[in-house]
Amino acid sequence: MGITIGDPAGIGPEVALKALRDPRIVAVVRPVLLGPRLVIEQYAKRLGVTRRLVFVDGVPEVWRTGQILAIDTGHFNLPAIPFGRVHPECGRAALAAIRRGVALARSGSLDALVTGPIHKKSAQLAGIVGAGHTEFIAHLCGVRDVRLMLVGPKLRVIHVSAHVSLRTAIDLVKRHRIVRTIVLGSEVVRRLGIARPRIAVAGLNPHASDTGLFGDEEQRQIAPAVVIARRRGFRVQGPIPPDTVFYRAWQGEFDLVVAMYHDQGHIAAKTLGFEDAVNITAGLPIVRASVDHGTAFDIAGQNKAKPRNMKNALLLAARLVSHRAIPAAQ
Amino acid sequence: MGITIGDPAGIGPEVALKALRDPRIVAVVRPVLLGPRLVIEQYAKRLGVTRRLVFVDGVPEVWRTGQILAIDTGHFNLPAIPFGRVHPECGRAALAAIRRGVALARSGSLDALVTGPIHKKSAQLAGIVGAGHTEFIAHLCGVRDVRLMLVGPKLRVIHVSAHVSLRTAIDLVKRHRIVRTIVLGSEVVRRLGIARPRIAVAGLNPHASDTGLFGDEEQRQIAPAVVIARRRGFRVQGPIPPDTVFYRAWQGEFDLVVAMYHDQGHIAAKTLGFEDAVNITAGLPIVRASVDHGTAFDIAGQNKAKPRNMKNALLLAARLVSHRAIPAAQ
Repeated sequence: MGITIGDPAGIGPEVALKALRDPRIVAVVRPVLLGPRLVIEQYAKRLGVTRRLVFVDGVPEVWRTGQILAIDTGHFNLPAIPFGRVHPECGRAALAAIRRGVALARSGSLDALVTGPIHKKSAQLAGIVGAGHTEFIAHLCGVRDVRLMLVGPKLRVIHVSAHVSLRTAIDLVKRHRIVRTIVLGSEVVRRLGIARPRIAVAGLNPHASDTGLFGDEEQRQIAPAVVIARRRGFRVQGPIPPDTVFYRAWQGEFDLVVAMYHDQGHIAAKTLGFEDAVNITAGLPIVRASVDHGTAFDIAGQNKAKPRNMKNALLLAARLVSHRAIPAAQ
Repeated sequence: MGITIGDPAGIGPEVALKALRDPRIVAVVRPVLLGPRLVIEQYAKRLGVTRRLVFVDGVPEVWRTGQILAIDTGHFNLPAIPFGRVHPECGRAALAAIRRGVALARSGSLDALVTGPIHKKSAQLAGIVGAGHTEFIAHLCGVRDVRLMLVGPKLRVIHVSAHVSLRTAIDLVKRHRIVRTIVLGSEVVRRLGIARPRIAVAGLNPHASDTGLFGDEEQRQIAPAVVIARRRGFRVQGPIPPDTVFYRAWQGEFDLVVAMYHDQGHIAAKTLGFEDAVNITAGLPIVRASVDHGTAFDIAGQNKAKPRNMKNALLLAARLVSHRAIPAAQ
């Protein structure tokens, strides 16, 4: 499993190496860190895992238990890590690791890619293609139509749209887009071992518009999308009032919620379990999980970052990969 | 404390009388039920509280502990309660109880009004004025500019707008409206005994627009509103990303969150504690709390309804009333 360390000035390298100190993680994950050698080595030293760290040029066939493999993804042109600071060189290093990780995953050398947090400004200074991390990975994979999914222990949510204004998000609530979101979300949930997921589709407006009293998107777009998805064999219900659907899913009534916009799903998932929700990109030709937090520049380099979300991302990616090989999970 | 029983065909009368069987409730609340005598008596019999029930014409000065007073708010022109059905007579009965309750609260005979759930369709058939329950009460009180607030044990949220489409809600994200929401929310929180509440103002867009990348409402409306409120002496922060602000408040960082639209606050509050969030109407000249659930027609008349939310509404109204008398709570 490839792990990009993210922006060297953020907490990405720290949470990656901290996660790999946990025996429960290395019991299920064979890690290949991707990033500048200097950065990985510095953190390995600080966190006491230097003996286990082995730099390689490519992903080997054989493996020694407990080893943390690492691939140097390019020279780091700074004398020291500029902790907590925006820097084009950090952006460049972060993007180089992602490029290498995606290439190795696409070629089959890696089963999955787990990505550490990058910093938007540094990435922009380094010339990132696309609006952000996910869009960049989609671009490298040659796809456009991806969806942000949050997977927690008791709640799985896929979003019809993500990093756009709320006004634009409303414009994106369209039948075909909702149906496609249902299809992509189902694929991920099936890989997690649920053969016929029970899917809830949230409404857009308060009380799902209360039969048209506040807004018409439920009647014009969401309900028709549910009908189409049902005809295609999905077990889907909706539109369901947004303020009750997540609670019902969390109580076990649904395996997946289709959220109409970023915050609808994110408020529910992050409020229920701030560090538990792992970010999955559905619709890519590779398995990609990501921590659901940022670079946390305010605590970078201070040994304060908690690796819990990174651990969850690694464990979830491992589950997605193992199920992928099972024919029934299609 | 006045308690309107809500729509007779719903679970309102049941949860009201069930709540009043709890000794912890009657220890702090002197209840005056408001509704048709036939309905109240029928439920009192079923729930075994007939001996404690006393019909009165007005709110008396003296009181016997344990008594459940009730005021008949008008003849009920049906031979039996049409459980779980829309009926104009039920709407009429529900509205008559509200009218009487508001009048008694405005005249000072009642300290507060706790309202049971009404059914929108039945109320419309009975000619309700305004878009719903809260709007009707505001109309009876002669005010328009009210705000929906949800108060739970660890999270208090006030909403810039409520029962409008999400598109309209975005249009209502305006400086003066946000400032007014901060003012009204602060008043309620102060009545709960927090002299200088720490207030968080949520953003509207994902990541609070990430400094203008997705949407401009944060920069044009929300941030200026925060500046104005600060100048007026409020302890206020924001705009804060909507997917983290509720978790932070719930963790104890803020006493009040100002949500930009109905579901932003409702998803957080209902996901954290489905039956704990009590609905308060801020901006009325009377204290009004409401259950935060509907008539639940599917289980009406079946003795299945849980009074937990009604109990919370009664306890919260009692807290608001007792603090109202304390000068420091201004």
